[in-house]
Amino acid sequence: MTTSLLHQRLISCRQHSVTLAEPLSEADLQIQAEDFASPGKWHLAHTSWFFEEFILRPRGLQSSVAESFRFLFNSYYDTIGQRQPQGRRGLISRPSLAEILDYRAEVDHALASLMQTALDQDTLELLELGIQHEQQHQELFVTDMVYNLSQNPLLPAYLPPATSRTQPACDQHFLSFDGGLVTIGHDQAGFCFDNECPAHKHYLAPFKLANRLVSNADWLAFMEAGAYQQPLLWLSDGWKQRQQAGWEMPLYWQRDQHAGYAAYGMHGLQPVDPAAPVRHISYFEADAYARWAGKRLPTEAEWEHAARSSSADTAHAHARFADLARPKQATMHDLFGQAWQWTASPYIAYPGFQTRSGAVGEYNGKFMNGQYVLRGSSIATPAGHARASYRNFFAPHQRWQFTGLRLAEQG
Amino acid sequence: MTTSLLHQRLISCRQHSVTLAEPLSEADLQIQAEDFASPGKWHLAHTSWFFEEFILRPRGLQSSVAESFRFLFNSYYDTIGQRQPQGRRGLISRPSLAEILDYRAEVDHALASLMQTALDQDTLELLELGIQHEQQHQELFVTDMVYNLSQNPLLPAYLPPATSRTQPACDQHFLSFDGGLVTIGHDQAGFCFDNECPAHKHYLAPFKLANRLVSNADWLAFMEAGAYQQPLLWLSDGWKQRQQAGWEMPLYWQRDQHAGYAAYGMHGLQPVDPAAPVRHISYFEADAYARWAGKRLPTEAEWEHAARSSSADTAHAHARFADLARPKQATMHDLFGQAWQWTASPYIAYPGFQTRSGAVGEYNGKFMNGQYVLRGSSIATPAGHARASYRNFFAPHQRWQFTGLRLAEQG
Amino acid sequence: MTTSLLHQRLISCRQHSVTLAEPLSEADLQIQAEDFASPGKWHLAHTSWFFEEFILRPRGLQSSVAESFRFLFNSYYDTIGQRQPQGRRGLISRPSLAEILDYRAEVDHALASLMQTALDQDTLELLELGIQHEQQHQELFVTDMVYNLSQNPLLPAYLPPATSRTQPACDQHFLSFDGGLVTIGHDQAGFCFDNECPAHKHYLAPFKLANRLVSNADWLAFMEAGAYQQPLLWLSDGWKQRQQAGWEMPLYWQRDQHAGYAAYGMHGLQPVDPAAPVRHISYFEADAYARWAGKRLPTEAEWEHAARSSSADTAHAHARFADLARPKQATMHDLFGQAWQWTASPYIAYPGFQTRSGAVGEYNGKFMNGQYVLRGSSIATPAGHARASYRNFFAPHQRWQFTGLRLAEQG
Amino acid sequence: MTTSLLHQRLISCRQHSVTLAEPLSEADLQIQAEDFASPGKWHLAHTSWFFEEFILRPRGLQSSVAESFRFLFNSYYDTIGQRQPQGRRGLISRPSLAEILDYRAEVDHALASLMQTALDQDTLELLELGIQHEQQHQELFVTDMVYNLSQNPLLPAYLPPATSRTQPACDQHFLSFDGGLVTIGHDQAGFCFDNECPAHKHYLAPFKLANRLVSNADWLAFMEAGAYQQPLLWLSDGWKQRQQAGWEMPLYWQRDQHAGYAAYGMHGLQPVDPAAPVRHISYFEADAYARWAGKRLPTEAEWEHAARSSSADTAHAHARFADLARPKQATMHDLFGQAWQWTASPYIAYPGFQTRSGAVGEYNGKFMNGQYVLRGSSIATPAGHARASYRNFFAPHQRWQFTGLRLAEQG
Repeated sequence: MTTSLLHQRLISCRQHSVTLAEPLSEADLQIQAEDFASPGKWHLAHTSWFFEEFILRPRGLQSSVAESFRFLFNSYYDTIGQRQPQGRRGLISRPSLAEILDYRAEVDHALASLMQTALDQDTLELLELGIQHEQQHQELFVTDMVYNLSQNPLLPAYLPPATSRTQPACDQHFLSFDGGLVTIGHDQAGFCFDNECPAHKHYLAPFKLANRLVSNADWLAFMEAGAYQQPLLWLSDGWKQRQQAGWEMPLYWQRDQHAGYAAYGMHGLQPVDPAAPVRHISYFEADAYARWAGKRLPTEAEWEHAARSSSADTAHAHARFADLARPKQATMHDLFGQAWQWTASPYIAYPGFQTRSGAVGEYNGKFMNGQYVLRGSSIATPAGHARASYRNFFAPHQRWQFTGLRLAEQG
Repeated sequence: MTTSLLHQRLISCRQHSVTLAEPLSEADLQIQAEDFASPGKWHLAHTSWFFEEFILRPRGLQSSVAESFRFLFNSYYDTIGQRQPQGRRGLISRPSLAEILDYRAEVDHALASLMQTALDQDTLELLELGIQHEQQHQELFVTDMVYNLSQNPLLPAYLPPATSRTQPACDQHFLSFDGGLVTIGHDQAGFCFDNECPAHKHYLAPFKLANRLVSNADWLAFMEAGAYQQPLLWLSDGWKQRQQAGWEMPLYWQRDQHAGYAAYGMHGLQPVDPAAPVRHISYFEADAYARWAGKRLPTEAEWEHAARSSSADTAHAHARFADLARPKQATMHDLFGQAWQWTASPYIAYPGFQTRSGAVGEYNGKFMNGQYVLRGSSIATPAGHARASYRNFFAPHQRWQFTGLRLAEQG
Repeated sequence: MTTSLLHQRLISCRQHSVTLAEPLSEADLQIQAEDFASPGKWHLAHTSWFFEEFILRPRGLQSSVAESFRFLFNSYYDTIGQRQPQGRRGLISRPSLAEILDYRAEVDHALASLMQTALDQDTLELLELGIQHEQQHQELFVTDMVYNLSQNPLLPAYLPPATSRTQPACDQHFLSFDGGLVTIGHDQAGFCFDNECPAHKHYLAPFKLANRLVSNADWLAFMEAGAYQQPLLWLSDGWKQRQQAGWEMPLYWQRDQHAGYAAYGMHGLQPVDPAAPVRHISYFEADAYARWAGKRLPTEAEWEHAARSSSADTAHAHARFADLARPKQATMHDLFGQAWQWTASPYIAYPGFQTRSGAVGEYNGKFMNGQYVLRGSSIATPAGHARASYRNFFAPHQRWQFTGLRLAEQG
Repeated sequence: MTTSLLHQRLISCRQHSVTLAEPLSEADLQIQAEDFASPGKWHLAHTSWFFEEFILRPRGLQSSVAESFRFLFNSYYDTIGQRQPQGRRGLISRPSLAEILDYRAEVDHALASLMQTALDQDTLELLELGIQHEQQHQELFVTDMVYNLSQNPLLPAYLPPATSRTQPACDQHFLSFDGGLVTIGHDQAGFCFDNECPAHKHYLAPFKLANRLVSNADWLAFMEAGAYQQPLLWLSDGWKQRQQAGWEMPLYWQRDQHAGYAAYGMHGLQPVDPAAPVRHISYFEADAYARWAGKRLPTEAEWEHAARSSSADTAHAHARFADLARPKQATMHDLFGQAWQWTASPYIAYPGFQTRSGAVGEYNGKFMNGQYVLRGSSIATPAGHARASYRNFFAPHQRWQFTGLRLAEQG
């Protein structure tokens, strides 16, 4: 990639974060309803901090902002030092939104200056990482803002009402894959995160994957079958969580006045669309659903192999997919762009995984415990961000991301 | 009081709340650092809700705002219904500050219309209660904003820096009071809260009260004597609290770079002024200090009797003080206007206490458990709000109010 | 009192603790269901530790037991040092019950030797305190064992079934007292705890007290009136507690198979006796009951004054009661021996209260926060232990003591 | 296996549980220091309940004990119904130890009668499962009793002092394995748990495994290097846990009076033996150690493959090990019998895993979340219980099992 193209992408990415904030007031951007749902303002500042801390500061180009920004907008980098506790980011009313936007502009300006110079490979890679990092926070910005606004009894909408999807979901059927000794992980052509590497051999028994995601209509059948009241369908930890949290339906759903269901989302409260993929379910619920349906969740290797084997949807992802095998049937819907798909795979290191040296080494590796991998991407993922080898990860009880599922079974 | 004078006071009081908010941004007014520290925006809305709910709505004059305001800005009135949980007031980013100021204006307008009509006694009393209620929230606005801003590592100041008090504290000595069978409580001339009634006889053994409040210099001596490490000086619950919370000094204090102390407050971080009254201490600390000093805290009856007996400071309070007795020595400093003074008296009902009928009956009575009475008033109390019979109350571990102490001993 | 008589009382008291344990196995005596419900074994050991630590050890007569007993069986005396955390007393399976009984015998032997010598006043007072302390733990032994056994779904009985009280409760009516300037507190003739002193003057407005305790039948009417669902009847803290704990009836009650109620107690699960005083209610429930009944709880001064004024029941208490006044009507039932009676009085120091010097000074004073005074005595109180000036105290949410109530109203 | 041999094994296994309890008093067997550390008495009862519930009751042979035993001694089987909460097992002082031993004898008698009849395959398999289940609880009995006794400041010993291991640990070196497409899981000859099935193909890249376990001397070096204070060595969750729990050394270790270390264990408090394998460390600590040492933890497949490939130690396990490959070097020490070895593998289902039908299906599958697999066996594992395919599992913060580690690295 040329430096000029990289710069264009950088400018576009940086601008997109600001665009995402435009429908919101400073007060909206200030609130934080739970530890996990950072304020919009914090995302705007932290993504700038990332560029400053990992690229500008080591090159003597740091901004004029107070030293305290290093503390306020550090997310979790112990290498860099102490930080504002995650659950108290919502208390940082100052710097103001205007000051944070100024900070963004100053960082942008310094990056533009940097782009005018000859850049070594390490700098280029860090710039790309900064873009990818900001894209991740763009999705978090949306999911966090939806969650934060959802805690207001008025249920204010982030975006104007949208017309709902009208075509019915296609029938669900299962596509067969032969498996065998396949290669999993990124082949290093183009950007990837360290957790996608190294590419490595993995043996897959024959398996089948559903052609589409589980829909809201499917989920209503699960609810109506009493599955939220049946402990034998659930993992032990999942059942405890369900009882403690009182789960009876996906996050953001509520019964509406006509005994149907409505769901809160980016566009406010709207009737549940039966044809749309179910979203905002935990791993525990996805796992219980699969058990109830007599199926199982796919492993991440199955998903990745199938995604690479499928001719559909891949235009969504920018990586070049290896052509390892051919599915017996051709079409996989909604691999990308609708909902992150829970897999049965705990998030752990690939064989031979190495963290990057320096503070950036804290990016992924230290979170490899207690989470599950999700594959694909969602309606909130920035264009061009996802790919077949991409590993998203969340804890099994979390529901505020745009998370759904696709069923699998033995081949 | 004439209706016209009442209207003037109402306008002035309502305006004062808005004035208090002027140095702050909407983001500042949005944050809530703990359950007890309500956002500034919420205080502005709730004080309007109070007028609407108790005066305008029953008289058919309610505002045009959404029905949801009844839920959002109800503090604790079960008679009126459900409400936003106290600890989640900071999540109400909408209505916006502008909408809340519009709401205030609309309520002001309706109140102005009401004042043009013939008002019965009940309405007059509720209008007075609304003013007094708003004054209480003006003090809470200040204490809550100071607390909320204090949780920002930048320690932004609510108000510009102030020049510190320079004259040294006077020597502490003890004034003797004969006690006897005295009358405690409000005599019903002028406004009072229900918890100050009825006036009743109370027997007081002879006692002595310090002429001044315990100063920061006094408190430093307590700290330097190791009192924060001596369990035998503390109540059992106080010692547990101290250990759990890690208390080593008053709230908002920190060691400064020259091994002295600085304290955060309305004007930001400033050196501790040795001559000023100590503030932001809990009942547990006040009690331990008194034990360490070989003294005790006064009872609320002692304090009230002494305040009425003293010729000093009473200009600060608007109530007419009965002249029941004469102190042997004349001067009591800082009865009002510096710091609320912890007493040894749990906050309970006076003999014959009756709550007012209707929702207003929830104002005070239901909180008569687990709290201690504080007397006097503080630097944050609106002018004219306090009086000798006034009973403020907080839990013994709380420190974010402007709380100090005055010593007592047996006569 | 002669030394010989004191020795007889000491022997009898010490034996009584062992007798209380006889119906129980070592496993029964080991368990601790909550922090507040100490194991039976621990009470047997701690009461011996008290004699050893405060009497024998300072006189060079300590027992041969391990130094670790100082740590294991210290309850809360910071003067003496560190201790086993209260909630982990149930983990001390060793020393065994046999070793603890040996320890008791050794302490008894040393005390017997001490009694053969000439005893100074301080020693005599401490011996009396040791007896009174052990009596307090005898009541706690019973209440704790009932609680600990109640957590077993088998509901094993501490004692064999008892025949229930058959005579109906007498009608409730209110006795009038003139009040005035009365003396409250112990007159120092005979033993009392430090918290009963000093006797002091207290002004009482005229008041009325119910002739009897609130009965189970009365309480059923309160329940059937929906009072457990009515927030306006409750203190704010009480309502929170009720909701959190799910209270619907007194502790130990359950609906039985015929839609009546049964209550667990010393004698196992038995039908609720309508005529018996209600027991195992919290202060919050007692307060709500009084509000529902249009009455109030008495203050501790009212109760003490009335108890001294009444000719009934006083044979139960060994103190000589001053004859300060005459009630207008003569009979007060169940002042002692049925249920501790919640008063409206927070547990605080009397005017001029002084703690005893030395470790014994931690006996009472440091607990003077967050609790309410109970007066009278219960079915579990050892004979001769209570008196009109006796101040028992528990936190307002606690229900595992034999706690009931008597109503009051203004005179 | 003949029925007669099975019966012999059953008798021997059942007797062994009683033997394990012999050094302990009923009080020792009653205590439960944390939710996870069940009382010894409960283990004795639950293992009998298992035989009764899954074998005797369905065949009309249930014991004469109260129906309540179904509730009291059910561990986690939702199919069977409600149960005593895990953390409150220590409150079941009745039934007494004698009654539980009677219950055991009655179950033994009924099992003996059953063995006289012709047994179908399902019954034979359940009897074997009952034996294996009781063996698992024998190890838990030891680990739980050690933990429960460790909470007594007297540190009473379960067993008499043992002479410590005197030969130094051999040098650590790494054995190379070629990997390739190997078979993992049990081949179904002889008993295994459902979680070891089905045997399946798995691809392994070349790897190396340490010839021995990490020793106490190794661990002291880790401690002395300050690794407990270095966040960058830890997983994020591990660092939070370390800080919250204050970990500075393995569970049960303490500094002794000569600045060395002593460790509590089955034989009481003894000096730390430098040559012995480290035990009582969490997954988080094992992972941090491996990172500090520049190595990693093995996966469970690597461990199993290596164990099958090694000629050493396999006499300890009764299963027939497939001879799939030859290590380049021959000797692996302490695969079994010293410490369970943490692997890097989260505990999840093998491809094609099926739970058994009926209540027994809850045995393993529902716990497949949030835990890691441990391989090998420990000093507390009953003889003949472990095998190369055996999958033990605990949460990453748990330390009370006899858990250690063996290092691995890429081949």
